[in-house]
Amino acid sequence: MGLELYLDLLSQPCRAVYIFAKKNSIPFQLRTIELLKGQHYTDDFARVNPLRKVPALKDGDFLLAESVAILLYLSRKYKAPDHWYPQDLQARARVDEYLSWQHTAVRSCCTRAMWQKMMFPKYLGQLVPPETLASTLAELDRCLQMLEDKFLRDQAFLTGPHISMADLVAITELMHPVSAGCKIFESRPKLDAWRKRVEAAVGENLFQEAHAVVLKAKDMPPLDPDLREKLKLSVQSLLY
Amino acid sequence: MGLELYLDLLSQPCRAVYIFAKKNSIPFQLRTIELLKGQHYTDDFARVNPLRKVPALKDGDFLLAESVAILLYLSRKYKAPDHWYPQDLQARARVDEYLSWQHTAVRSCCTRAMWQKMMFPKYLGQLVPPETLASTLAELDRCLQMLEDKFLRDQAFLTGPHISMADLVAITELMHPVSAGCKIFESRPKLDAWRKRVEAAVGENLFQEAHAVVLKAKDMPPLDPDLREKLKLSVQSLLY
Repeated sequence: MGLELYLDLLSQPCRAVYIFAKKNSIPFQLRTIELLKGQHYTDDFARVNPLRKVPALKDGDFLLAESVAILLYLSRKYKAPDHWYPQDLQARARVDEYLSWQHTAVRSCCTRAMWQKMMFPKYLGQLVPPETLASTLAELDRCLQMLEDKFLRDQAFLTGPHISMADLVAITELMHPVSAGCKIFESRPKLDAWRKRVEAAVGENLFQEAHAVVLKAKDMPPLDPDLREKLKLSVQSLLY
Repeated sequence: MGLELYLDLLSQPCRAVYIFAKKNSIPFQLRTIELLKGQHYTDDFARVNPLRKVPALKDGDFLLAESVAILLYLSRKYKAPDHWYPQDLQARARVDEYLSWQHTAVRSCCTRAMWQKMMFPKYLGQLVPPETLASTLAELDRCLQMLEDKFLRDQAFLTGPHISMADLVAITELMHPVSAGCKIFESRPKLDAWRKRVEAAVGENLFQEAHAVVLKAKDMPPLDPDLREKLKLSVQSLLY
């Protein structure tokens, strides 16, 4: 059995891995794990990733979790073009810096913004206090400012003149609040121009294909009631 | 000017960087930034790291934030022994997996446990509801279990038979709740044996030197009142 990727394109890091693999013509079997159907709770999936998170990779007997580790593994094994993760010492450090920073910054804000604005009220039947949402959106705004001021600056891409893993990881996060109706690019022309460059570099079709699920998330059918309660418990930390 | 590292050994990732640099005989100028004195709020430090976080690295004109990126940069530039970040594809992926996972798992739990158990009540004059602390400690416990079951397993170190960056990043986090009086190793003989192996591999003296500040944190003088209020605002998210 060749490379298998366990993904749900509703998840931001899964979209980054999916785009990276497709764009670099890496052959893989797609194993879809639908989080909103609780497919990550099965014993079968726990054998692939005991952390019960997607994305997960299976390459023969080798199992790997965590999107950043998976992106790096794929780029090394399949010798992806240098610009994704440059050999140059300082250019590579810039990518590492972003990939490290984003976990508790962009990723945290974008996830909470999307869940608080859409998923909690619409699918979990749980109202989010307006002041909580307002505070999350304000934090998202500060985070986007940091993304512009510290990372993008006057460059074409987040870590330099060429697209890197950092851009993929960032854009897939930013599309999360967009899917919930947050107009984050409208008031940020610099970030919007960057977004267009990333879409063009990835290819419009692949970009749309990877985001089709999340951009339709607001029109999904109601969740199964048992699963809704189980899911609710596991995402309460996103309410802060 | 050669390599400069901006550190406060009260911070877990700063300890990891400090131990790594010292253990590998990397020459650097130590620039101490005392967080509890608010030295990260100065304009001078913002020029080194606009994210206002330690650790930060300055190597000539090159500035770099984020401990994981700094560790990787140092290991590449100074050609640290292979075991820290192995060339082997799968072994390296194991280290990347841990370094990625820990941000929102071990790091998050250990920081909150230490602040809720010690820093909030003792230095910020802010009581932490007992149920909040209990929930944080329960989460820390689940996280330590995952550290044992998913990462350490029956290996000598977290990612294999030799010490890697993952072990340094983990042990420096785990010493944070220890400094606040959490007895996390007493009931976990496997993790305790790992801790002793890490200490031995690093060297007892260096390990103690790196942890001297945090292990005395419970006996520090009271904070300056103005700074205490400023600090309070910036750490409220650690109360959940």
